[in-house]
Amino acid sequence: MMMLGRTRQVFLRTFRVYVADSQRISQFSGGGTSLIYEEYGDPLKVVKQIDTVIPQQLKDDQVLIRMLAAPVNPADINTIQGVYPVKTKPPCVPGNEGVGEILDVGNKVRSELQPGDYVIPRSTAFGTWRTHALATPSELIKIPSDVDLATAATIAVNPGTAYRMLKDFVPLTSGDTVIQNGANSAVGQAVIQIAAALGLKTVNVVRDRPSINELKQFLTKLGATVVLTESELRKSEEIKALPPPSLALNCVGGRSSTELLRQLAPEGVMVTYGGMSRQPIAVPTGALIFTDVKLFGFWMTRWNSNHLNHPERHQMLDELFQLARNGELKPPDHTLVPFSSFHIALENAMPSEGMLGKKQILIFK
Amino acid sequence: MMMLGRTRQVFLRTFRVYVADSQRISQFSGGGTSLIYEEYGDPLKVVKQIDTVIPQQLKDDQVLIRMLAAPVNPADINTIQGVYPVKTKPPCVPGNEGVGEILDVGNKVRSELQPGDYVIPRSTAFGTWRTHALATPSELIKIPSDVDLATAATIAVNPGTAYRMLKDFVPLTSGDTVIQNGANSAVGQAVIQIAAALGLKTVNVVRDRPSINELKQFLTKLGATVVLTESELRKSEEIKALPPPSLALNCVGGRSSTELLRQLAPEGVMVTYGGMSRQPIAVPTGALIFTDVKLFGFWMTRWNSNHLNHPERHQMLDELFQLARNGELKPPDHTLVPFSSFHIALENAMPSEGMLGKKQILIFK
Repeated sequence: MMMLGRTRQVFLRTFRVYVADSQRISQFSGGGTSLIYEEYGDPLKVVKQIDTVIPQQLKDDQVLIRMLAAPVNPADINTIQGVYPVKTKPPCVPGNEGVGEILDVGNKVRSELQPGDYVIPRSTAFGTWRTHALATPSELIKIPSDVDLATAATIAVNPGTAYRMLKDFVPLTSGDTVIQNGANSAVGQAVIQIAAALGLKTVNVVRDRPSINELKQFLTKLGATVVLTESELRKSEEIKALPPPSLALNCVGGRSSTELLRQLAPEGVMVTYGGMSRQPIAVPTGALIFTDVKLFGFWMTRWNSNHLNHPERHQMLDELFQLARNGELKPPDHTLVPFSSFHIALENAMPSEGMLGKKQILIFK
Repeated sequence: MMMLGRTRQVFLRTFRVYVADSQRISQFSGGGTSLIYEEYGDPLKVVKQIDTVIPQQLKDDQVLIRMLAAPVNPADINTIQGVYPVKTKPPCVPGNEGVGEILDVGNKVRSELQPGDYVIPRSTAFGTWRTHALATPSELIKIPSDVDLATAATIAVNPGTAYRMLKDFVPLTSGDTVIQNGANSAVGQAVIQIAAALGLKTVNVVRDRPSINELKQFLTKLGATVVLTESELRKSEEIKALPPPSLALNCVGGRSSTELLRQLAPEGVMVTYGGMSRQPIAVPTGALIFTDVKLFGFWMTRWNSNHLNHPERHQMLDELFQLARNGELKPPDHTLVPFSSFHIALENAMPSEGMLGKKQILIFK
């Protein structure tokens, strides 16, 4: 652990290094604040708040952003812990996702971005947990400003994951069935809504819990066709009334994923995007050989880095924002947390008994 | 258990039923013999030998075949046990694979097949464990007669599996690496040889055993680049000198398959075609999400039934026979067993401590 005096020193010393980085620790003229971690570790211990200075003059290719809202995603936690495959080089600003408003623009970027525009990061590890950020336009994607902040701050990673998994692995048409576990996760909620908008049926598996009926009602209201606990899945009559699913989405692993495989139609595909149970996926040999199921993984970070500026990415975001505008895609069940109370958001974003609670979204003012 | 008298009765009674079937129990004029199982069960108990009669006159669309050689494959054993996904309806003749010689042809098929031609079954469950068979040309594929009998009898299923797995999942070019477990299986031996002919490197994993050095020499002589026991795989320096494999072939499951997954290059594919350990495949979540590995299954029976008369199938067989002619594809390590000693072949073809010995090939005279 470092003392505050040393922290500031590191911050100033490393500024030059990080100015060329999307994770830069910016110097702002005037009063900003930023979270920072100087070493990997328990987020509740290593993440600290520091003051930043807003610069008086922008470079020609720079824009100054005021952050509006930024979620705390599991990937953010794992990045700070140093266990995520995207390795940062602390000291850096945490936060991969969020929405900001352009405050000011350099001389050469006036045609691309104007003050008042809303933007999200184009790449991972931008560092969204700070009141202000400097960036070049190529690091940003302009988004519509007529969507609520919680939606704008959370649309890229989780609904993006849901959208791609529904589009890229199995050709689905209206009436087809998709099965998923961890259906109450942020991705799971997006899957339910996007699938419903596409006319797809969803079988949604969740872990049993005291408030199971509330959860079932919540997901059904979002558009879930069927919601089942893991123990209900095997004996369910509801699922037998649906076409067998050709797509399974797995964010749990262990037994839960084996159950999904059992439900898959011949030639069905299981896409894994998470492993909440921390158990490997046990795949029965016969499912691969005789039922011809296929297993893929999906990682939004990789897809984005392969489609940084690709028309498909812009089309996806356009469609997601259109769904949001229509009321067909709501942000995940969430709590807005003032930026100054970031430690509460971090605490609530850590899995408890392998489950995650409401999505924590930091709000800047 | 049925008495012999009753067996014969069933055989005669069911003849009419099976005459329309590829698994027919034929009536021959003169002295033939056939194996038969009247119920699912332990092959050593339910498989019996019966006499058959060779017909004096062929129908216009029929051919009469004299079987020359037929292997005992694991799928044959599992079919008789009633645990294979292809369900037969006993009583029937066992044996899915083998080579026969045309003895006589009906009037309408003279342009397609002549006496002396060598043929193999086009579909599974033909019933090859009999001295004589009646068939229509559409049930048969004509093959070259200049290849040794052990090769001709065993080329369709196991080398076919090896060929398709090397061709259909990952685009491989000369110098690329393929890793496989169960490398001493019949498919494994074919993989080594076909891969070598294609200029591919193979990393071959086998279970440790008393005669490990002999086995290593045998596989190396076939063209294996590296042969390792499961315990040697993790610490091997030899494998580090090769390009990381983009294709893994798994016929074992359990820990062995997890080790293969660990060795796969990013975006690599593991194809499962067997499960000798009877353990499911444990897939680490991160391998799917972050390394982007993909898991598929392969089943020759399904591929064949989807390509019954497809040019791709004939091209594959042509290439395999060409390799055999060149000495680049030898039959699997085998023992020729006279048909009358079929019970010895069956006994030797049953896995012992999860391992299979030499391929048993029934020889008819």
